[in-house]
This record gives sequence, structure tokens and C-alpha cells, in this order.
Amino acid sequence: MLELLVSDRIYRPFRKDIDSLGPDLVACVINGDSITPDPVEPRVLLYTADIPGEQLASMLTRYPSIEWIQVGMAGVETLLPHLGGYRGTVTNMTGWHADAVGEWVLGMVLAHARKLASVFRNSQEGLWKREVGEEISGKTLGIVGAGWIGNSVATRAAAFGMDVIGIRRSPGALPHFSNVDGPGGLPELLERSHYVLISVPLTAHTRGMIDGRAFELMRNDAVLINVARGSVVNTEDLMKALARNAIAGAILDVTDPEPLPEHHPLWSMPNVIIGAHSAWLSVRSEGRIMSSFGENFRRWAAGKPMRNVVDSKREY
Amino acid sequence: MLELLVSDRIYRPFRKDIDSLGPDLVACVINGDSITPDPVEPRVLLYTADIPGEQLASMLTRYPSIEWIQVGMAGVETLLPHLGGYRGTVTNMTGWHADAVGEWVLGMVLAHARKLASVFRNSQEGLWKREVGEEISGKTLGIVGAGWIGNSVATRAAAFGMDVIGIRRSPGALPHFSNVDGPGGLPELLERSHYVLISVPLTAHTRGMIDGRAFELMRNDAVLINVARGSVVNTEDLMKALARNAIAGAILDVTDPEPLPEHHPLWSMPNVIIGAHSAWLSVRSEGRIMSSFGENFRRWAAGKPMRNVVDSKREY
Repeated sequence: MLELLVSDRIYRPFRKDIDSLGPDLVACVINGDSITPDPVEPRVLLYTADIPGEQLASMLTRYPSIEWIQVGMAGVETLLPHLGGYRGTVTNMTGWHADAVGEWVLGMVLAHARKLASVFRNSQEGLWKREVGEEISGKTLGIVGAGWIGNSVATRAAAFGMDVIGIRRSPGALPHFSNVDGPGGLPELLERSHYVLISVPLTAHTRGMIDGRAFELMRNDAVLINVARGSVVNTEDLMKALARNAIAGAILDVTDPEPLPEHHPLWSMPNVIIGAHSAWLSVRSEGRIMSSFGENFRRWAAGKPMRNVVDSKREY
Repeated sequence: MLELLVSDRIYRPFRKDIDSLGPDLVACVINGDSITPDPVEPRVLLYTADIPGEQLASMLTRYPSIEWIQVGMAGVETLLPHLGGYRGTVTNMTGWHADAVGEWVLGMVLAHARKLASVFRNSQEGLWKREVGEEISGKTLGIVGAGWIGNSVATRAAAFGMDVIGIRRSPGALPHFSNVDGPGGLPELLERSHYVLISVPLTAHTRGMIDGRAFELMRNDAVLINVARGSVVNTEDLMKALARNAIAGAILDVTDPEPLPEHHPLWSMPNVIIGAHSAWLSVRSEGRIMSSFGENFRRWAAGKPMRNVVDSKREY
């Protein structure tokens, strides 16, 4: 018998997929504080955002038999503080949402350039009014963090004739990028880019990396796009930069704090679009939680290396 | 001496470019009813949308010396009725706006799929609310009229993993299309496509081609996008199809009539976005009028074949 801990929110829609993973698999379903059936020696936990961090910590203490946690999210920074002395494997969903985020980013870049928010407003108000926007071909897109999401965006942006440059931990040529530098390339990237995309994991190294100095370097017609984590950007510095037109705008799928409180001044700043941490989200997202778990489950069961093993030293 | 007729709206910003086309060139500038200096034997007319059709007709009668009209627009259907007995060459801007339109179409497709209009509204209202949209990868885009604009859209859509199919007068393989059929392929294209893009010139053959029968064939989750001319689509039939949810929505950069009158019922239909015939328009557009004229002028002056010679039988 192999006991799997999984939340009711995931088990309900994917019961068939989960049950078919193995004949000896028993799903112990987490619903609020209760788990049914009561687990004896669970070895696997499918951890999703609906399970509070405190509950995760208490399950890890109570069930030391847990040897593998599959995280149904790409970022693990909210999870890591609750792992305590856990020494098993953690895998996440890095890369699985890259297509969804790539579409969202290009949609937002095009909407910004071509003034689509105004087109929508005019259309709603019954106003036949031409909006004269920019075009993105030939413009430079700087990608801070050329990982799965960065590459997904680059592939699409290149088809629009954008010049895509990037930085990442390990520099080296990548398709659709005209240049990929190491972390030291950040200042030049900021100076050159019309659009700056933040797509790094949140770590001790990246927290607050886009600060007042970074905004000094950016073009004053540049637009910042953050689909990483809110606190990669220093919110105070961002608001100052926007207020004095040091940059042209910001498209923030993520914010710090998050959710952004009702009367936070960012809401009312012109040229700021606030998503609600949903660039990854579509009708296909839940299916991907199941697909990524299923793929790793088969690898785990066969004793093969799993995808997306989290390195707690790198923090992603 | 070579006299060129050109409107003040174009001459003012591009005086230097126009004057540098030839040492013997004299620009006769049209400003309302007056032309300065008074032309004697003008051979070339740069015709732009600010010149009324009636004025075009009267200039052609008055100056039979005009042998070439460069039209600063892609569509010539408003011009053709005013040509009278004119037997000279007409060239247009076919293809010059394809990048701009390609960006607009993909921006609108992504905005529709990812519910960006709602994201903009939430952001404006200070509402942290997740919108669960669709993704476009794997979806089918059917392009009715695989010309310059159709190809521009196809290149970009393919980078998103869309399956692009098309029809055109002369079928045959095209990059980024999985299939290009002749005009007879329209029914199958309509049946298969999640997004149907209309990018044909308006001719006797294409007028009203998207009618009640076409909407019957379309998927009920399909979105119609028209960047061609309003009257390629039968507006009454479109409104009926939308009202009974036979299709999911319409993104209309062009309408019939145009401009769409203030209280036209299309404005208030849900799932309809009305542009204002501006998919082609950006800060780069006027420069393209000059570039396309300049390129053809050099060809004309050198006795070489010009680009985009209008075939009045084909009507484009």
C-alpha cells in the first residue's frame, strides 16, 4: 500500500488520474484539518497552494515517512520556511506554466504598445476613435532570468522581430536571444531594453534586485514587466521611478505585498497594470498540476531521476 | 521639371524626403481646394485619404498629364469609382502595414483568450481578482486571404503553437501554414477554426462573403476578426449570429458602415470589440507612406517595374 497525501481540491477533479497511477495507491484526502482515510505511513505529498504552510509543517512532523513532496507550483519560497528538518526530495512545477505565462506577457506587451486598453474602453463607450500606438518590431526585450518562462517569451517575441537579450546564472547562447549574459550583464540589459521582463526565482540573491539603481539605468520609455515574485522589485523604488517618469510604465502580475491591499498607492498610479498573480492561470492549469505530478510519479515509482528537483541551497 | 501633386498633410512632415527625390521635382501642394504652386503638367499624384474622391476625379479631368497615382493606403475600393477614364498606373501600399496589423491581431487574440480587458478593468478598479482564460497554443487560426497581412499574422501565430490554416486565390504551401487552400476551402476553414481572420481585399467576390451561411458553419466558440473591410462581413448576419451565440465573439477593426454610427446596435453587443480602422496605424505609419512612395518613385524614374501595381479588374 502506498499512501499519497493530496488535497480535496485536486483529488476531486483528478480522482481517476490519481487512482490510476498504481493499483496499491491510496489517496489520503486533505480537507481542511481532516485527512480521509487516516494515513498510516504516507510516502508522497502532493502539495498545492490551498494547504497552509503551518499544516504542511505539522504533517511533516507527524508523518516522517514522507519522502517526496511534489509542489503544484513553480515557486517554492513560501514552502521552504515550513520544511523544518525535512530531508526528503522536493520537486516543483518549474517550466510547466511557461506557455501560459509566455502568452500573457506578449499579450500585455502588445496591449501596451498598441494601446489596446484604450481601444477596449473606446469600444465599451461607443467611441470611434483612433489610437496611435507604437510597434514592437525592432524594439529590445531584456529578459532577467532566461529560464523556462524567459525562453517561452523569447520564442514568441522573436517572431515579432524584437531583439531579445537576457541574463541568467549560466551565460551562453540560447535560441531566439541575440545575447545571453551572466548576472553581471544586468546594468547593460537595463540600459538597452524597451521592455524589461523579470522572470527569476525569488532567492536571497534576487530579492530587491530591481531597485532605485536599476530604475536609474532604465530608459525612460521602458516598461517593467514582473511575472516572477513581487519582492524581486523594490516597490517603494518602483513607485518613485514611476512618479518622476524615470520609466514609462509597469505591468505587474505579482506585487509586494500580495495580494495588493485595497488602498495601496500602486493601484492608482497611471501606467501601472496590476494582474492578480494569474499570468500562469488558464483553464489548462489544473491539468498541468496533475500532469507534472503524474510524470514525476512514474519516474519515482520506477526509481528514475525526477524532473524539477528543488535545490534548497539555490532556493529553487 | 517634374510636377508632383501631394497633400499638405504629407508634404509638411516629409518635405525634405520629397524634395530630395529629384533636383527637377516640384511639389504642388494640395491644401483644401487650392494647389500651390499652380501645376502646369503634373505627371505624378501621391493620393492620401485626406483628399476627397470628388477632388481626385476633378484633378484627373483637369490634369490629363497625370500618368501615375501612388495611393497612400492599402485598399483602393474607395478610389476606384473616382478614376473615371484614367488609364495611367495606380500603385498602392499593399504589404506596407502588414507588421502593424500582425501585431494588432495577435494582441487582440491574446487579449481575448487571456481576458486582458477584464484584467485592465480590475486593475483600474483596484480589484485583486484572478481571471481564468484560455490559451491559444494548439488552437486553430483560419486566415481568409493569405496575403501580406495573413502571412504576417501566420508568422507570429505559429510561434505561439497555433495551427494556422488559410485560403487564398492561388492555393499552395506557405511557411507557417499547415494548409493553404483555394477559395473553395472556405467552408472547411470556417468549421475548423477557433479564430477566423478576414484579411482579403474588398472586391465584388469578397463583398458579403461572411454571411449567415458562414456563421452557421463556424464553431460556437469561434471568434471572428475582421481587419479587411467592413462589408466583407454581412453586419446583419453577424449580429444575428452573436445574438444567438452561434459564435463567441467578434473583433472588428473595420465595420459596415464606417465609421460605425453612434447608436449602432453593434456597439452594445457583448463580446464585440470595435477598433476604429486603426490596426494599421502606429507612430510608424506616416513614414511608411513616404517610404513606399519613395521606393516606387525611384523605380518609376528609372523606368523599372513598380511595386503594388493595382489591377483594376481584380480590384486590388
